[in-house]
Amino acid sequence: MTPRNNHRQPEGDVNPITASPDDSPAGLRSRPENTHFRKAVDEMEGYTPGEQPKRVGGWIKLNTNENPYPPSPKVSEALASFAAGCLRLYPDPECREVRGFLAELHGVGIDNIIAGNGSDDILTMVMRSFVSEAGVCACPDPTYSLYPVLASIQGARCEPIPLEPDFSFPANFAEKASGASLVLIPRPNAPTGTAFDKLALENFRRDFRGVVLIDEAYADFADDDCLDLAVKYPNVIVSRTLSKSYSLAGARFGYAVASEELISGMMKVKDSYNVNALTQAAALAALKDRAYFEETVAKIRATRKQLVKELLGMGFEVAASSANFVFAQPPDGDAGRLYAALKEKGILVRWFSSSAATQSRVRITVGTDDEISALLSAIRQLVVAGT
Amino acid sequence: MTPRNNHRQPEGDVNPITASPDDSPAGLRSRPENTHFRKAVDEMEGYTPGEQPKRVGGWIKLNTNENPYPPSPKVSEALASFAAGCLRLYPDPECREVRGFLAELHGVGIDNIIAGNGSDDILTMVMRSFVSEAGVCACPDPTYSLYPVLASIQGARCEPIPLEPDFSFPANFAEKASGASLVLIPRPNAPTGTAFDKLALENFRRDFRGVVLIDEAYADFADDDCLDLAVKYPNVIVSRTLSKSYSLAGARFGYAVASEELISGMMKVKDSYNVNALTQAAALAALKDRAYFEETVAKIRATRKQLVKELLGMGFEVAASSANFVFAQPPDGDAGRLYAALKEKGILVRWFSSSAATQSRVRITVGTDDEISALLSAIRQLVVAGT
Repeated sequence: MTPRNNHRQPEGDVNPITASPDDSPAGLRSRPENTHFRKAVDEMEGYTPGEQPKRVGGWIKLNTNENPYPPSPKVSEALASFAAGCLRLYPDPECREVRGFLAELHGVGIDNIIAGNGSDDILTMVMRSFVSEAGVCACPDPTYSLYPVLASIQGARCEPIPLEPDFSFPANFAEKASGASLVLIPRPNAPTGTAFDKLALENFRRDFRGVVLIDEAYADFADDDCLDLAVKYPNVIVSRTLSKSYSLAGARFGYAVASEELISGMMKVKDSYNVNALTQAAALAALKDRAYFEETVAKIRATRKQLVKELLGMGFEVAASSANFVFAQPPDGDAGRLYAALKEKGILVRWFSSSAATQSRVRITVGTDDEISALLSAIRQLVVAGT
Repeated sequence: MTPRNNHRQPEGDVNPITASPDDSPAGLRSRPENTHFRKAVDEMEGYTPGEQPKRVGGWIKLNTNENPYPPSPKVSEALASFAAGCLRLYPDPECREVRGFLAELHGVGIDNIIAGNGSDDILTMVMRSFVSEAGVCACPDPTYSLYPVLASIQGARCEPIPLEPDFSFPANFAEKASGASLVLIPRPNAPTGTAFDKLALENFRRDFRGVVLIDEAYADFADDDCLDLAVKYPNVIVSRTLSKSYSLAGARFGYAVASEELISGMMKVKDSYNVNALTQAAALAALKDRAYFEETVAKIRATRKQLVKELLGMGFEVAASSANFVFAQPPDGDAGRLYAALKEKGILVRWFSSSAATQSRVRITVGTDDEISALLSAIRQLVVAGT
């Protein structure tokens, strides 16, 4: 079995041209002889770097949940005025300035916050903190495909717990997760865009003996969030990223909020200088510009509303989205055909073909109004042509 | 036992004021009740963030091996012309442009190179790739104090192998390391500054069944390096950083060179987007400015030569340095007194008090000529006063 290029397709793949449409669950590879690697690493399917052709213009890229708007102009200013001479010195290993701002923003203490090199770094810290080699974690299914990969690197198993057919939180989640020391729950979830019932999560937490990581990468696009649960309960961690709502995917800044006990333990696990000085400056500038942030999020929510309305009008089934993307089933249920036809027209959406729970839908990132208009025109042509 | 602030004193600590002089080896903490953490994490001594007072001017900071010169002016230019709008997109997960340049620079293939968020990130990847929970790695003693911490996070043991009294590579290294799946060997070594005999390393590699990581963080200041061993042998990895010789500690860029087999396995272990877009741009600009790099390194080597000569003249014993620091024993052997007296005068050097092998010496980073003149004047006063 040769390594596949598409298993660990990261959220923000920059190579839409060669990317495969789906992301299959991790399989086991046969182990090579004379290997130096840990068995877990040998046997996992890793992200095998494929070709990286230069970014080709002309595509409408609605496949990776990037923000269609640039980051706040304050980020440019911060970078333009950054004294490059300071780069000879190590960055603040504790990101105290950014964490101080976040603490005020969220009304928590600075010791309730840890910063990461993107929220993927936070996820790695969480996995390394709470799941042993040969241990077990759990996550909903379908969900962010990185979770099982992180478990594999740790030499652990990730138990996928099927959602209800309407993508809601299953009543048997606690029972199914009982053997896990960590559960990873995105809210809003990806690729469904749905936000699990908050009370259901809170109740699950009560019955669960391990740590609950609520991954709020998309929470800024939702009506509510779970930060209060991280403050209230000693086994809840909420993670956030500046990649989506602050348009800073390229800068890599994520963070987590939790009890001082959990944060101080995770501090031991993190790389000393995990967030570089440039990113600390960019993150602080973006966070401080509240007006720009609120405006951008409001634009995306408005465009999302319009997109959902139009898709419903054309007979699509659309999961209620609390994120910057929608998960939609075309009238004929042939998502593969839709994905391919849109690609023909230069419009990239995401199709997760490997699972029965997802293969009848496409995931569409909310772009600018112009991009979404172009998408809707293309879909209208296809749907009319198909009928 | 309360957490200590000084155990995981990172190389580039930015808080010289509150930093303790030494870095003690990792001890075991008693395990708290009701913990969610892995046993390994609970029991390790982590870097407990201490106070971070604002950077205080007026210090001559020769304690963290930072480069006294700013990065190449090309770095400022690259950052000034960086289109911040691009930060909305994910960075190249494979760092192909920087790796392509490095491949040409070193005469290897791009698939022989992996990029990291600083070389500490490379060290983490190596630990996670080759050492299992409850596994064993080994390193020289004394050496970079991060190695045993990385082993602890992994739940593994790090076997310290004592160097010869003159800090040379011990003849029994292979025998002592025989139970390890990975050895970490800095060349030049820290804090001694000495470069182990290359042939001795090559012979050790031959007899060793595991992976040999040669940490070349300081190799640009040495007369030779071991890159050829990484090309030649399937169990050798050489790591490098732009923190020291390229003055980019704040930007976090490191890399490793090894066989395609080792690199492709490590690619599975690394975080997808471990190097942000700003750092990729800064690293490329710094690497391309060969003239500036060579000039800076030559200046530091010249200052080092002068520093060693003067110290020898005052009766110090100085280990032969191939790095941007020297490891020197004062005539009376009282390094603690020298450390404290210099601090009184506003000059920070490093004193590793916890080990018999290091406690009679101070480690002095090679600063500018002016900084080193001030240091030498201060030492001269102290030595004269002391006699």
